[in-house]
Amino acid sequence: MKEERREVIYRHAKKWILEAGELIRKKINDPLIVETKSNPKDLVTAIDRETEYFLAKNIKSTFPDHFLFSEEGYGEDLETLDGVVWIVDPIDGTMNFVKQKRNFAISIGIFYNGIGEIGLVYDCMGGNLYTALRGKGAFKNSERLPDLAPNLTLEESILDFNHYLLCQNDVIDERVMQRLVEKIRGARSYCCAALALAYVAEGIVDGYLTKKLAPWDIAGGMIIANEVGAVTTKLDGNPVNMLMNGSTLTCHPAIQKEIIHDYLKKGKK
Amino acid sequence: MKEERREVIYRHAKKWILEAGELIRKKINDPLIVETKSNPKDLVTAIDRETEYFLAKNIKSTFPDHFLFSEEGYGEDLETLDGVVWIVDPIDGTMNFVKQKRNFAISIGIFYNGIGEIGLVYDCMGGNLYTALRGKGAFKNSERLPDLAPNLTLEESILDFNHYLLCQNDVIDERVMQRLVEKIRGARSYCCAALALAYVAEGIVDGYLTKKLAPWDIAGGMIIANEVGAVTTKLDGNPVNMLMNGSTLTCHPAIQKEIIHDYLKKGKK
Repeated sequence: MKEERREVIYRHAKKWILEAGELIRKKINDPLIVETKSNPKDLVTAIDRETEYFLAKNIKSTFPDHFLFSEEGYGEDLETLDGVVWIVDPIDGTMNFVKQKRNFAISIGIFYNGIGEIGLVYDCMGGNLYTALRGKGAFKNSERLPDLAPNLTLEESILDFNHYLLCQNDVIDERVMQRLVEKIRGARSYCCAALALAYVAEGIVDGYLTKKLAPWDIAGGMIIANEVGAVTTKLDGNPVNMLMNGSTLTCHPAIQKEIIHDYLKKGKK
Repeated sequence: MKEERREVIYRHAKKWILEAGELIRKKINDPLIVETKSNPKDLVTAIDRETEYFLAKNIKSTFPDHFLFSEEGYGEDLETLDGVVWIVDPIDGTMNFVKQKRNFAISIGIFYNGIGEIGLVYDCMGGNLYTALRGKGAFKNSERLPDLAPNLTLEESILDFNHYLLCQNDVIDERVMQRLVEKIRGARSYCCAALALAYVAEGIVDGYLTKKLAPWDIAGGMIIANEVGAVTTKLDGNPVNMLMNGSTLTCHPAIQKEIIHDYLKKGKK
Protein backbone atom coordinates (compact mmCIF):
# COMPACT_ATOMS: atom_id res chain seq x y z
CA MET A 1 0.00 0.00 0.00
CA LYS A 2 1.36 3.40 -0.95
CA GLU A 3 2.29 5.61 1.98
CA GLU A 4 0.10 8.54 0.98
CA ARG A 5 -2.91 6.30 0.49
CA ARG A 6 -2.32 4.66 3.86
CA GLU A 7 -2.09 8.08 5.52
CA VAL A 8 -5.42 9.13 4.01
CA ILE A 9 -7.11 5.96 5.23
CA TYR A 10 -5.54 6.36 8.69
CA ARG A 11 -6.70 9.96 9.01
CA HIS A 12 -10.26 8.96 8.19
CA ALA A 13 -10.19 5.98 10.52
CA LYS A 14 -8.88 8.12 13.37
CA LYS A 15 -11.53 10.79 12.82
CA TRP A 16 -14.32 8.22 12.73
CA ILE A 17 -13.19 6.23 15.75
CA LEU A 18 -13.00 9.42 17.81
CA GLU A 19 -16.48 10.41 16.63
CA ALA A 20 -17.80 6.94 17.40
CA GLY A 21 -16.34 7.22 20.91
CA GLU A 22 -18.12 10.54 21.35
CA LEU A 23 -21.41 8.91 20.32
CA ILE A 24 -20.89 6.17 22.91
CA ARG A 25 -19.97 8.63 25.66
CA LYS A 26 -23.16 10.60 24.99
CA LYS A 27 -25.30 7.48 25.36
CA ILE A 28 -23.38 5.74 28.13
CA ASN A 29 -25.97 6.51 30.81
CA ASP A 30 -29.07 5.88 28.68
CA PRO A 31 -31.17 2.87 29.68
CA LEU A 32 -29.80 -0.19 27.90
CA ILE A 33 -31.63 -3.11 26.38
CA VAL A 34 -29.20 -5.99 26.54
CA GLU A 35 -29.71 -9.00 24.31
CA THR A 36 -27.74 -12.21 24.23
CA LYS A 37 -26.24 -13.78 21.12
CA SER A 38 -24.54 -17.17 21.02
CA ASN A 39 -24.84 -17.77 24.78
CA PRO A 40 -26.00 -15.94 27.95
CA LYS A 41 -22.55 -14.40 28.37
CA ASP A 42 -22.35 -13.07 24.79
CA LEU A 43 -24.09 -9.70 25.02
CA VAL A 44 -25.10 -7.06 22.51
CA THR A 45 -26.87 -3.72 22.79
CA ALA A 46 -28.33 -1.20 20.38
CA ILE A 47 -25.23 0.93 20.95
CA ASP A 48 -22.99 -1.85 19.57
CA ARG A 49 -25.12 -1.87 16.43
CA GLU A 50 -25.40 1.91 16.11
CA THR A 51 -21.66 2.34 16.53
CA GLU A 52 -20.91 -0.24 13.87
CA TYR A 53 -23.51 1.31 11.56
CA PHE A 54 -21.86 4.72 11.98
CA LEU A 55 -18.45 3.30 11.08
CA ALA A 56 -19.76 1.12 8.24
CA LYS A 57 -21.66 4.01 6.66
CA ASN A 58 -18.55 6.21 6.66
CA ILE A 59 -16.25 3.50 5.39
CA LYS A 60 -18.60 2.44 2.61
CA SER A 61 -19.40 5.95 1.40
CA THR A 62 -15.81 7.21 1.49
CA PHE A 63 -14.04 4.04 0.32
CA PRO A 64 -16.58 2.09 -1.73
CA ASP A 65 -13.91 -0.37 -2.90
CA HIS A 66 -12.91 -1.32 0.67
CA PHE A 67 -14.28 -4.38 2.40
CA LEU A 68 -15.68 -4.53 5.93
CA PHE A 69 -15.52 -7.56 8.20
CA SER A 70 -17.27 -6.82 11.45
CA GLU A 71 -19.20 -8.09 14.42
CA GLU A 72 -22.73 -6.76 14.16
CA GLY A 73 -23.68 -7.51 10.58
CA TYR A 74 -22.99 -4.36 8.57
CA GLY A 75 -20.00 -5.93 6.85
CA GLU A 76 -19.54 -8.66 4.27
CA ASP A 77 -18.90 -12.38 4.46
CA LEU A 78 -15.34 -12.45 3.22
CA GLU A 79 -13.43 -15.41 1.87
CA THR A 80 -10.12 -13.63 1.30
CA LEU A 81 -8.23 -10.64 2.65
CA ASP A 82 -7.49 -9.34 -0.86
CA GLY A 83 -7.68 -5.58 -1.22
CA VAL A 84 -8.29 -3.24 1.72
CA VAL A 85 -10.23 -4.89 4.52
CA TRP A 86 -11.44 -3.11 7.65
CA ILE A 87 -11.90 -5.52 10.55
CA VAL A 88 -14.09 -3.75 13.08
CA ASP A 89 -15.48 -4.36 16.54
CA PRO A 90 -17.70 -1.42 17.53
CA ILE A 91 -17.58 -2.36 21.23
CA ASP A 92 -15.09 -4.97 22.35
CA GLY A 93 -15.79 -5.94 25.93
CA THR A 94 -19.56 -5.57 25.80
CA MET A 95 -20.00 -7.11 29.26
CA ASN A 96 -17.73 -4.42 30.72
CA PHE A 97 -19.61 -1.81 28.70
CA VAL A 98 -22.96 -2.96 30.12
CA LYS A 99 -21.90 -3.51 33.71
CA GLN A 100 -19.04 -1.12 34.23
CA LYS A 101 -19.54 1.61 31.63
CA ARG A 102 -15.79 1.47 31.12
CA ASN A 103 -13.00 -1.02 30.33
CA PHE A 104 -14.22 -1.56 26.75
CA ALA A 105 -12.91 -0.30 23.42
CA ILE A 106 -13.69 0.34 19.78
CA SER A 107 -11.29 -1.69 17.66
CA ILE A 108 -10.32 -1.21 14.02
CA GLY A 109 -7.67 -3.16 12.13
CA ILE A 110 -7.07 -2.32 8.47
CA PHE A 111 -5.42 -4.93 6.29
CA TYR A 112 -4.09 -4.66 2.74
CA ASN A 113 -3.76 -7.96 0.90
CA GLY A 114 -3.60 -9.75 4.24
CA ILE A 115 -1.02 -7.50 5.91
CA GLY A 116 -2.09 -5.50 8.97
CA GLU A 117 -1.31 -1.89 8.03
CA ILE A 118 -3.28 0.27 10.48
CA GLY A 119 -4.48 -0.46 14.00
CA LEU A 120 -6.68 1.66 16.25
CA VAL A 121 -8.06 0.82 19.70
CA TYR A 122 -10.06 3.51 21.46
CA ASP A 123 -10.75 3.31 25.17
CA CYS A 124 -13.30 6.07 24.83
CA MET A 125 -14.23 6.29 28.53
CA GLY A 126 -10.60 6.45 29.63
CA GLY A 127 -9.83 8.87 26.81
CA ASN A 128 -6.97 6.80 25.44
CA LEU A 129 -6.52 6.18 21.74
CA TYR A 130 -3.92 3.57 20.81
CA THR A 131 -2.77 3.62 17.18
CA ALA A 132 -0.15 2.12 14.88
CA LEU A 133 0.88 2.30 11.26
CA ARG A 134 2.96 -0.75 10.34
CA GLY A 135 6.63 0.24 10.37
CA LYS A 136 5.94 3.72 11.72
CA GLY A 137 5.58 3.00 15.44
CA ALA A 138 2.72 2.70 17.89
CA PHE A 139 1.21 5.51 19.93
CA LYS A 140 -0.91 6.05 23.00
CA ASN A 141 -2.54 9.36 22.17
CA SER A 142 0.37 11.54 21.08
CA GLU A 143 3.00 9.59 23.02
CA ARG A 144 5.06 7.09 21.07
CA LEU A 145 5.19 3.70 22.77
CA PRO A 146 8.74 2.40 23.10
CA ASP A 147 9.66 -0.97 21.66
CA LEU A 148 9.29 -3.79 24.18
CA ALA A 149 12.36 -4.18 26.40
CA PRO A 150 14.76 -6.76 24.95
CA ASN A 151 14.79 -9.16 27.89
CA LEU A 152 12.03 -10.74 29.88
CA THR A 153 11.69 -14.05 31.69
CA LEU A 154 8.46 -15.94 32.14
CA GLU A 155 8.92 -15.72 35.92
CA GLU A 156 8.76 -11.92 35.64
CA SER A 157 5.78 -11.85 33.30
CA ILE A 158 2.20 -10.75 33.81
CA LEU A 159 -0.28 -12.46 31.48
CA ASP A 160 -3.90 -11.57 30.82
CA PHE A 161 -6.25 -14.45 30.23
CA ASN A 162 -9.74 -15.49 31.14
CA HIS A 163 -10.51 -17.68 34.15
CA TYR A 164 -12.16 -20.15 31.74
CA LEU A 165 -8.72 -21.36 30.69
CA LEU A 166 -8.33 -22.70 34.23
CA CYS A 167 -11.61 -24.61 34.00
CA GLN A 168 -12.30 -27.77 32.01
CA ASN A 169 -12.49 -26.74 28.37
CA ASP A 170 -12.14 -28.23 24.92
CA VAL A 171 -8.97 -26.42 23.88
CA ILE A 172 -6.37 -26.86 26.58
CA ASP A 173 -5.78 -28.99 29.65
CA GLU A 174 -6.57 -26.70 32.56
CA ARG A 175 -3.92 -28.37 34.73
CA VAL A 176 -1.22 -27.17 32.35
CA MET A 177 -2.62 -23.64 32.57
CA GLN A 178 -2.51 -23.96 36.36
CA ARG A 179 1.21 -24.73 36.11
CA LEU A 180 1.62 -21.62 33.95
CA VAL A 181 -0.12 -19.53 36.63
CA GLU A 182 2.31 -20.88 39.23
CA LYS A 183 5.26 -20.01 36.99
CA ILE A 184 4.49 -16.41 36.07
CA ARG A 185 4.61 -13.37 38.32
CA GLY A 186 0.94 -12.58 37.93
CA ALA A 187 -2.22 -13.22 35.97
CA ARG A 188 -4.86 -10.65 35.18
CA SER A 189 -8.27 -10.84 33.62
CA TYR A 190 -9.54 -7.57 32.18
CA CYS A 191 -11.94 -9.23 29.74
CA CYS A 192 -11.46 -6.89 26.81
CA ALA A 193 -9.21 -8.34 24.11
CA ALA A 194 -8.62 -5.05 22.33
CA LEU A 195 -7.50 -3.32 25.53
CA ALA A 196 -5.44 -6.31 26.62
CA LEU A 197 -3.50 -6.06 23.36
CA ALA A 198 -3.08 -2.31 23.85
CA TYR A 199 -1.71 -3.12 27.33
CA VAL A 200 0.77 -5.56 25.76
CA ALA A 201 1.84 -2.71 23.48
CA GLU A 202 2.26 -0.45 26.52
CA GLY A 203 4.28 -3.16 28.27
CA ILE A 204 1.97 -3.22 31.30
CA VAL A 205 1.09 -6.82 30.61
CA ASP A 206 3.44 -9.16 28.78
CA GLY A 207 0.98 -11.34 26.97
CA TYR A 208 -2.64 -12.02 26.25
CA LEU A 209 -4.04 -15.42 25.40
CA THR A 210 -7.48 -16.67 24.57
CA LYS A 211 -8.90 -19.98 23.48
CA LYS A 212 -11.39 -18.60 20.98
CA LEU A 213 -12.13 -15.14 19.67
CA ALA A 214 -13.32 -13.58 16.44
CA PRO A 215 -10.91 -11.66 14.18
CA TRP A 216 -12.56 -8.32 15.04
CA ASP A 217 -11.73 -8.80 18.73
CA ILE A 218 -8.02 -8.82 18.05
CA ALA A 219 -7.36 -7.18 14.66
CA GLY A 220 -6.70 -3.61 15.78
CA GLY A 221 -4.85 -4.43 18.99
CA MET A 222 -2.68 -7.07 17.37
CA ILE A 223 -1.35 -4.60 14.81
CA ILE A 224 -0.52 -2.14 17.59
CA ALA A 225 1.15 -4.73 19.85
CA ASN A 226 3.11 -6.28 17.01
CA GLU A 227 4.38 -2.83 15.99
CA VAL A 228 6.35 -2.50 19.26
CA GLY A 229 7.75 -6.02 18.94
CA ALA A 230 5.08 -8.35 20.29
CA VAL A 231 4.34 -11.52 18.36
CA THR A 232 1.00 -13.12 17.58
CA THR A 233 0.14 -16.72 16.78
CA LYS A 234 -2.51 -19.25 17.64
CA LEU A 235 -1.97 -21.10 20.92
CA ASP A 236 -0.18 -23.87 18.99
CA GLY A 237 2.27 -21.44 17.40
CA ASN A 238 0.64 -21.46 13.97
CA PRO A 239 -0.30 -18.22 12.22
CA VAL A 240 -3.65 -16.68 13.07
CA ASN A 241 -6.28 -16.60 10.34
CA MET A 242 -7.96 -13.19 10.26
CA LEU A 243 -11.09 -14.58 8.62
CA MET A 244 -11.87 -17.29 11.18
CA ASN A 245 -12.52 -17.55 14.89
CA GLY A 246 -9.62 -19.12 16.71
CA SER A 247 -7.19 -19.10 19.59
CA THR A 248 -4.58 -16.36 20.00
CA LEU A 249 -1.40 -15.68 21.91
CA THR A 250 0.06 -12.18 21.62
CA CYS A 251 3.10 -11.71 23.82
CA HIS A 252 6.59 -10.40 24.33
CA PRO A 253 8.86 -12.34 21.94
CA ALA A 254 11.23 -13.42 24.73
CA ILE A 255 8.57 -15.57 26.39
CA GLN A 256 6.69 -16.86 23.35
CA LYS A 257 8.61 -20.10 22.77
CA GLU A 258 8.53 -21.13 26.41
CA ILE A 259 4.79 -20.47 26.73
CA ILE A 260 4.01 -22.40 23.56
CA HIS A 261 6.40 -25.32 23.93
CA ASP A 262 6.40 -25.86 27.69
CA TYR A 263 2.73 -25.13 28.32
CA LEU A 264 0.31 -24.63 25.45
CA LYS A 265 1.51 -27.50 23.25
CA LYS A 266 1.75 -29.84 26.23
CA GLY A 267 -1.81 -29.00 27.24
CA LYS A 268 -3.34 -29.02 23.77
CA LYS A 269 -6.45 -31.19 23.41
CA MET B 1 -17.37 7.87 68.34
CA LYS B 2 -18.80 11.37 68.46
CA GLU B 3 -19.76 12.81 65.11
CA GLU B 4 -17.64 15.96 65.40
CA ARG B 5 -14.60 13.93 66.39
CA ARG B 6 -15.13 11.54 63.50
CA GLU B 7 -15.42 14.48 61.09
CA VAL B 8 -12.11 15.91 62.33
CA ILE B 9 -10.36 12.58 61.87
CA TYR B 10 -11.92 12.13 58.42
CA ARG B 11 -10.82 15.58 57.25
CA HIS B 12 -7.24 14.87 58.28
CA ALA B 13 -7.26 11.42 56.71
CA LYS B 14 -8.60 12.80 53.44
CA LYS B 15 -6.00 15.58 53.36
CA TRP B 16 -3.15 13.16 54.05
CA ILE B 17 -4.24 10.51 51.56
CA LEU B 18 -4.48 13.14 48.81
CA GLU B 19 -1.02 14.43 49.73
CA ALA B 20 0.36 10.90 49.79
CA GLY B 21 -1.09 10.34 46.33
CA GLU B 22 0.61 13.49 45.12
CA LEU B 23 3.95 12.21 46.49
CA ILE B 24 3.48 8.94 44.62
CA ARG B 25 2.53 10.67 41.37
CA LYS B 26 5.66 12.81 41.56
CA LYS B 27 7.87 9.73 41.91
CA ILE B 28 5.99 7.37 39.64
CA ASN B 29 8.55 7.54 36.84
CA ASP B 30 11.67 7.48 39.04
CA PRO B 31 13.82 4.36 38.76
CA LEU B 32 12.51 1.77 41.20
CA ILE B 33 14.38 -0.69 43.34
CA VAL B 34 12.01 -3.57 43.85
CA GLU B 35 12.56 -5.99 46.72
CA THR B 36 10.65 -9.12 47.53
CA LYS B 37 9.17 -9.97 50.91
CA SER B 38 7.53 -13.28 51.81
CA ASN B 39 7.86 -14.70 48.28
CA PRO B 40 8.98 -13.62 44.78
CA LYS B 41 5.50 -12.30 44.01
CA ASP B 42 5.27 -10.18 47.18
CA LEU B 43 6.96 -6.93 46.20
CA VAL B 44 7.92 -3.77 48.03
CA THR B 45 9.63 -0.55 47.00
CA ALA B 46 11.04 2.47 48.77
CA ILE B 47 7.89 4.35 47.74
CA ASP B 48 5.70 1.94 49.71
CA ARG B 49 7.83 2.69 52.77
CA GLU B 50 8.04 6.45 52.21
CA THR B 51 4.30 6.71 51.71
CA GLU B 52 3.60 4.79 54.90
CA TYR B 53 6.15 6.89 56.78
CA PHE B 54 4.44 10.06 55.58
CA LEU B 55 1.06 8.83 56.78
CA ALA B 56 2.40 7.40 60.05
CA LYS B 57 4.24 10.60 60.92
CA ASN B 58 1.10 12.69 60.41
CA ILE B 59 -1.17 10.31 62.29
CA LYS B 60 1.20 9.96 65.23
CA SER B 61 1.93 13.67 65.58
CA THR B 62 -1.69 14.82 65.21
CA PHE B 63 -3.40 11.98 67.07
CA PRO B 64 -0.84 10.59 69.52
CA ASP B 65 -3.47 8.42 71.23
CA HIS B 66 -4.45 6.64 67.98
CA PHE B 67 -3.02 3.30 67.00
CA LEU B 68 -1.60 2.36 63.61
CA PHE B 69 -1.70 -1.11 62.10
CA SER B 70 0.06 -1.09 58.76
CA GLU B 71 2.01 -2.99 56.15
CA GLU B 72 5.50 -1.57 56.11
CA GLY B 73 6.47 -1.47 59.76
CA TYR B 74 5.72 2.05 61.00
CA GLY B 75 2.75 0.85 63.02
CA GLU B 76 2.32 -1.21 66.16
CA ASP B 77 1.75 -4.88 66.84
CA LEU B 78 -1.81 -4.73 68.07
CA GLU B 79 -3.66 -7.34 70.07
CA THR B 80 -7.00 -5.53 70.22
CA LEU B 81 -8.95 -2.96 68.21
CA ASP B 82 -9.71 -0.92 71.34
CA GLY B 83 -9.60 2.83 70.80
CA VAL B 84 -9.03 4.47 67.42
CA VAL B 85 -7.04 2.24 65.06
CA TRP B 86 -5.85 3.28 61.60
CA ILE B 87 -5.34 0.26 59.35
CA VAL B 88 -3.17 1.44 56.47
CA ASP B 89 -1.76 0.06 53.25
CA PRO B 90 0.40 2.73 51.60
CA ILE B 91 0.31 0.95 48.22
CA ASP B 92 -2.13 -1.88 47.75
CA GLY B 93 -1.38 -3.63 44.49
CA THR B 94 2.38 -3.17 44.52
CA MET B 95 2.85 -5.46 41.51
CA ASN B 96 0.54 -3.22 39.48
CA PHE B 97 2.37 -0.18 40.83
CA VAL B 98 5.74 -1.57 39.72
CA LYS B 99 4.71 -2.95 36.34
CA GLN B 100 1.80 -0.80 35.29
CA LYS B 101 2.24 2.45 37.19
CA ARG B 102 -1.52 2.38 37.73
CA ASN B 103 -4.25 0.09 39.08
CA PHE B 104 -3.03 0.41 42.68
CA ALA B 105 -4.38 2.39 45.64
CA ILE B 106 -3.63 3.85 49.01
CA SER B 107 -6.00 2.33 51.55
CA ILE B 108 -6.99 3.62 54.99
CA GLY B 109 -9.61 2.12 57.28
CA ILE B 110 -10.24 3.77 60.64
CA PHE B 111 -11.85 1.70 63.38
CA TYR B 112 -13.19 2.76 66.76
CA ASN B 113 -13.48 -0.04 69.31
CA GLY B 114 -13.58 -2.54 66.47
CA ILE B 115 -16.21 -0.80 64.32
CA GLY B 116 -15.16 0.46 60.88
CA GLU B 117 -16.01 4.17 60.98
CA ILE B 118 -14.07 5.74 58.10
CA GLY B 119 -12.85 4.24 54.84
CA LEU B 120 -10.66 5.83 52.15
CA VAL B 121 -9.26 4.23 49.00
CA TYR B 122 -7.30 6.48 46.67
CA ASP B 123 -6.60 5.44 43.09
CA CYS B 124 -4.10 8.25 42.79
CA MET B 125 -3.18 7.64 39.13
CA GLY B 126 -6.80 7.47 38.02
CA GLY B 127 -7.60 10.46 40.20
CA ASN B 128 -10.43 8.71 42.02
CA LEU B 129 -10.88 8.95 45.78
CA TYR B 130 -13.45 6.58 47.29
CA THR B 131 -14.61 7.45 50.81
CA ALA B 132 -17.21 6.47 53.38
CA LEU B 133 -18.25 7.45 56.87
CA ARG B 134 -20.29 4.67 58.46
CA GLY B 135 -23.97 5.55 58.21
CA LYS B 136 -23.34 8.64 56.09
CA GLY B 137 -22.96 7.12 52.65
CA ALA B 138 -20.08 6.28 50.33
CA PHE B 139 -18.63 8.57 47.70
CA LYS B 140 -16.49 8.42 44.58
CA ASN B 141 -14.92 11.87 44.62
CA SER B 142 -17.89 14.19 45.16
CA GLU B 143 -20.46 11.79 43.75
CA ARG B 144 -22.49 9.77 46.23
CA LEU B 145 -22.55 6.08 45.37
CA PRO B 146 -26.07 4.66 45.35
CA ASP B 147 -26.95 1.70 47.54
CA LEU B 148 -26.50 -1.60 45.73
CA ALA B 149 -29.56 -2.56 43.66
CA PRO B 150 -31.92 -4.78 45.67
CA ASN B 151 -31.89 -7.79 43.36
CA LEU B 152 -29.10 -9.74 41.79
CA THR B 153 -28.69 -13.36 40.79
CA LEU B 154 -25.42 -15.24 40.80
CA GLU B 155 -25.89 -15.89 37.06
CA GLU B 156 -25.79 -12.13 36.45
CA SER B 157 -22.82 -11.47 38.71
CA ILE B 158 -19.26 -10.46 37.97
CA LEU B 159 -16.76 -11.55 40.62
CA ASP B 160 -13.15 -10.47 41.04
CA PHE B 161 -10.75 -13.10 42.29
CA ASN B 162 -7.25 -14.24 41.64
CA HIS B 163 -6.43 -17.04 39.20
CA TYR B 164 -4.74 -18.87 42.11
CA LEU B 165 -8.16 -19.87 43.43
CA LEU B 166 -8.51 -21.99 40.27
CA CYS B 167 -5.20 -23.73 40.92
CA GLN B 168 -4.47 -26.34 43.59
CA ASN B 169 -4.30 -24.50 46.89
CA ASP B 170 -4.63 -25.16 50.60
CA VAL B 171 -7.83 -23.21 51.21
CA ILE B 172 -10.42 -24.31 48.67
CA ASP B 173 -10.98 -27.10 46.17
CA GLU B 174 -10.21 -25.52 42.82
CA ARG B 175 -12.82 -27.70 41.10
CA VAL B 176 -15.54 -26.03 43.14
CA MET B 177 -14.21 -22.63 42.11
CA GLN B 178 -14.30 -23.81 38.50
CA ARG B 179 -18.01 -24.56 38.93
CA LEU B 180 -18.48 -21.06 40.31
CA VAL B 181 -16.78 -19.60 37.22
CA GLU B 182 -19.17 -21.55 35.01
CA LYS B 183 -22.14 -20.25 37.00
CA ILE B 184 -21.44 -16.52 37.07
CA ARG B 185 -21.62 -14.08 34.18
CA GLY B 186 -17.96 -13.17 34.37
CA ALA B 187 -14.79 -13.29 36.43
CA ARG B 188 -12.22 -10.55 36.61
CA SER B 189 -8.79 -10.32 38.15
CA TYR B 190 -7.58 -6.77 38.78
CA CYS B 191 -5.16 -7.78 41.55
CA CYS B 192 -5.69 -4.84 43.86
CA ALA B 193 -7.93 -5.68 46.82
CA ALA B 194 -8.58 -2.07 47.79
CA LEU B 195 -9.72 -1.15 44.29
CA ALA B 196 -11.73 -4.35 43.92
CA LEU B 197 -13.69 -3.39 47.04
CA ALA B 198 -14.17 0.12 45.69
CA TYR B 199 -15.51 -1.48 42.50
CA VAL B 200 -17.95 -3.53 44.59
CA ALA B 201 -19.07 -0.26 46.15
CA GLU B 202 -19.53 1.22 42.68
CA GLY B 203 -21.49 -1.85 41.60
CA ILE B 204 -19.17 -2.55 38.66
CA VAL B 205 -18.23 -5.90 40.17
CA ASP B 206 -20.55 -7.78 42.49
CA GLY B 207 -18.05 -9.45 44.74
CA TYR B 208 -14.40 -9.88 45.60
CA LEU B 209 -12.96 -12.96 47.20
CA THR B 210 -9.50 -13.91 48.29
CA LYS B 211 -8.03 -16.85 50.12
CA LYS B 212 -5.57 -14.88 52.22
CA LEU B 213 -4.89 -11.21 52.69
CA ALA B 214 -3.76 -8.91 55.48
CA PRO B 215 -6.20 -6.58 57.23
CA TRP B 216 -4.62 -3.50 55.63
CA ASP B 217 -5.42 -4.82 52.15
CA ILE B 218 -9.14 -4.77 52.83
CA ALA B 219 -9.82 -2.40 55.75
CA GLY B 220 -10.55 0.81 53.83
CA GLY B 221 -12.37 -0.76 50.90
CA MET B 222 -14.49 -3.01 53.10
CA ILE B 223 -15.89 -0.03 55.02
CA ILE B 224 -16.76 1.70 51.74
CA ALA B 225 -18.36 -1.38 50.15
CA ASN B 226 -20.31 -2.27 53.28
CA GLU B 227 -21.64 1.29 53.47
CA VAL B 228 -23.61 0.82 50.22
CA GLY B 229 -24.94 -2.53 51.35
CA ALA B 230 -22.22 -5.07 50.55
CA VAL B 231 -21.45 -7.69 53.17
CA THR B 232 -18.07 -9.00 54.29
CA THR B 233 -17.15 -12.32 55.90
CA LYS B 234 -14.46 -14.93 55.64
CA LEU B 235 -14.95 -17.47 52.87
CA ASP B 236 -16.70 -19.76 55.38
CA GLY B 237 -19.19 -17.09 56.35
CA ASN B 238 -17.60 -16.28 59.71
CA PRO B 239 -16.71 -12.71 60.67
CA VAL B 240 -13.38 -11.34 59.49
CA ASN B 241 -10.75 -10.58 62.12
CA MET B 242 -9.13 -7.23 61.39
CA LEU B 243 -5.98 -8.14 63.31
CA MET B 244 -5.16 -11.34 61.44
CA ASN B 245 -4.50 -12.44 57.90
CA GLY B 246 -7.35 -14.43 56.48
CA SER B 247 -9.77 -15.12 53.71
CA THR B 248 -12.42 -12.61 52.68
CA LEU B 249 -15.60 -12.45 50.67
CA THR B 250 -17.14 -9.01 50.15
CA CYS B 251 -20.18 -9.10 47.90
CA HIS B 252 -23.68 -8.03 47.11
CA PRO B 253 -25.93 -9.41 49.88
CA ALA B 254 -28.28 -11.13 47.42
CA ILE B 255 -25.56 -13.56 46.30
CA GLN B 256 -23.68 -14.08 49.57
CA LYS B 257 -25.54 -17.13 50.86
CA GLU B 258 -25.43 -18.97 47.56
CA ILE B 259 -21.69 -18.34 47.09
CA ILE B 260 -20.88 -19.47 50.61
CA HIS B 261 -23.23 -22.44 50.92
CA ASP B 262 -23.19 -23.84 47.39
CA TYR B 263 -19.54 -23.20 46.60
CA LEU B 264 -17.15 -22.00 49.28
CA LYS B 265 -18.30 -24.33 52.07
CA LYS B 266 -18.48 -27.28 49.70
CA GLY B 267 -14.94 -26.63 48.51
CA LYS B 268 -13.42 -25.83 51.90
CA LYS B 269 -10.28 -27.80 52.74
